[in-house]
Amino acid sequence: MSMATKSQNRVSRQTWKYNEDVRIQGSAVVVGPKEGEGPLKDLFDKAYDDMYAGQETWEKAEKKLMEDAIKLAIKKAKLKDDQIDQIIAGDLLNQNITVSFTAEKMQFPTLGMYGACSSSMLTLSTASALVNAGYSNYIVAACSSHNATAERQFRYPTEYGGQKPPHSQCTVTGAGAAIVGLGGSGPRITYSTVGKVIDLGITDPFAMGAAMAPAAVSTIATHFIDTGRSPKDYDLIVTGDLGSVGYAICKDMLAKEGYNMEGVYNDCGLMIYSPDQEVFAGASGCASSASVTYSYIMNQLQSGKMKKVLVCATGALLSPISTQQGNSIPCIAHAVAFEGGK
Amino acid sequence: MSMATKSQNRVSRQTWKYNEDVRIQGSAVVVGPKEGEGPLKDLFDKAYDDMYAGQETWEKAEKKLMEDAIKLAIKKAKLKDDQIDQIIAGDLLNQNITVSFTAEKMQFPTLGMYGACSSSMLTLSTASALVNAGYSNYIVAACSSHNATAERQFRYPTEYGGQKPPHSQCTVTGAGAAIVGLGGSGPRITYSTVGKVIDLGITDPFAMGAAMAPAAVSTIATHFIDTGRSPKDYDLIVTGDLGSVGYAICKDMLAKEGYNMEGVYNDCGLMIYSPDQEVFAGASGCASSASVTYSYIMNQLQSGKMKKVLVCATGALLSPISTQQGNSIPCIAHAVAFEGGK
Repeated sequence: MSMATKSQNRVSRQTWKYNEDVRIQGSAVVVGPKEGEGPLKDLFDKAYDDMYAGQETWEKAEKKLMEDAIKLAIKKAKLKDDQIDQIIAGDLLNQNITVSFTAEKMQFPTLGMYGACSSSMLTLSTASALVNAGYSNYIVAACSSHNATAERQFRYPTEYGGQKPPHSQCTVTGAGAAIVGLGGSGPRITYSTVGKVIDLGITDPFAMGAAMAPAAVSTIATHFIDTGRSPKDYDLIVTGDLGSVGYAICKDMLAKEGYNMEGVYNDCGLMIYSPDQEVFAGASGCASSASVTYSYIMNQLQSGKMKKVLVCATGALLSPISTQQGNSIPCIAHAVAFEGGK
Repeated sequence: MSMATKSQNRVSRQTWKYNEDVRIQGSAVVVGPKEGEGPLKDLFDKAYDDMYAGQETWEKAEKKLMEDAIKLAIKKAKLKDDQIDQIIAGDLLNQNITVSFTAEKMQFPTLGMYGACSSSMLTLSTASALVNAGYSNYIVAACSSHNATAERQFRYPTEYGGQKPPHSQCTVTGAGAAIVGLGGSGPRITYSTVGKVIDLGITDPFAMGAAMAPAAVSTIATHFIDTGRSPKDYDLIVTGDLGSVGYAICKDMLAKEGYNMEGVYNDCGLMIYSPDQEVFAGASGCASSASVTYSYIMNQLQSGKMKKVLVCATGALLSPISTQQGNSIPCIAHAVAFEGGK
């Protein structure tokens, strides 16, 4: 490997370029009942009609969603389990238990990651970097969230029926998985921009969209600077789960930095549910960006309706113990640039 | 990059080979009072004489340990903060809060990982892969644990004074950090073997050494097969934190697979404390393997006393909610091969 080749992978401290033909070989999304009634329902691979997905506990239901998504993605990639080198995955539950139990069952070598709801693009970036450099032939990047497991862990058990403020968001019940490999005809992965942790002092665990917006702005602006691209170069730029409050903040902040996002910008948290579903300010959770990216966006790129898409997955590194101790919520966002397959 | 070069990075589904001159540029270990009285005390960079490390809470103390270790490692590598491309780090606390708050303060682009106590070699492997392939010039790999934060989260708050069984272990209070980069004269990183999640059905959250031993055996045996090496090729092979119970099980199991570990095998959990310190079956925690690797082992390699060392960091992916729901403890182990610098 020559120094010239190596320097091409590193664009900056935050941006990596993939010079090989790194592509999504197959992807799948499996969701819960509410998501299965939303506007993207026809693009999801499977929707369970109950929150337990036929399991005893919500935690086991979340594992079932992840396992289903991984199996379907491998099948759609026309691969067999033993052709998968590693799984790189994250979820919202303490100790990443969805990942651990799923990985144990499937017996893939495992790299666990944690980026809260940014895990979708964190895991996809790491998988792409390893495949591009020839460490692995095929890697599964996966993540999941479940409304009931997340609410119980981060706020209150849903059985309490606690009131939620209007700026709160609804954690998506779902899992998304993508198989990364070289060649084929799927959507290409061309750049990743790794985020910095940003903390502007928000301490309300319901106000995650507002807390995360500055992290999204930091990563998207850095991506533009590092790649020489601008909003015009993309058919679509999405953030992961800012919801309506964070979306407006993000758009305004980017405009102040000179980036006009009008007509090109959306938020996955605003795309999963329809306005008449009761979801407060929109969707959140690892599965928000994963569900939209690995269904609708892959579909748009594959069909040629879109040529370039930037997905900036946003994560509130929210910790109950830390907020109880009076600390604010550090946030991070990781972005991946896709190009239509051909 | 030619196909020939790429296939050299991939040895198998689990083992990566680093063909460039990937080396530890500097490393540091900062510990708490008990560790500062143990047999490795002269090799640690700093030891606090209280568990709070001058902070208000134990969680903030853990952050202080990680920040100190990172700053000292960067200083020992003779680098400046803005030469560091990323931090890749993990800790034991829910939502990886030690990493998030430390990364926010230091403003490095951040990749969060979770592998429980295997995080030391999980983060070092990922950092080495990215540096070897030219994505990054210098990466900090770091991890931490704190006895009081871990006991409260995983078992009982230490103030309760609950009795612990003799096979339980003592979570290390400490943090270790290493700067990975190309060139220089530090210890080389030559191979990583990524673990699979192994679960043999142990449900006792105090019996982690026994639970983790099969994961260590799986990774070490795979490393030998993939590299064509045997125990004789190493001056030292350590596991991360099996303690006395897990150590004996691991040694026996490897013997049954045909690997004689006599005279070459030790466990970091048996090296940090002296037998007269009250630590039950030995040390545990992310900081167990990190503290020993980034002080004693680096020192032995740098001085030429050892030529080849294999560190297999072991992680019990223990979750209180999962064990309360009757599930067993999935475990994983990741190994990194080092060679003496010259």
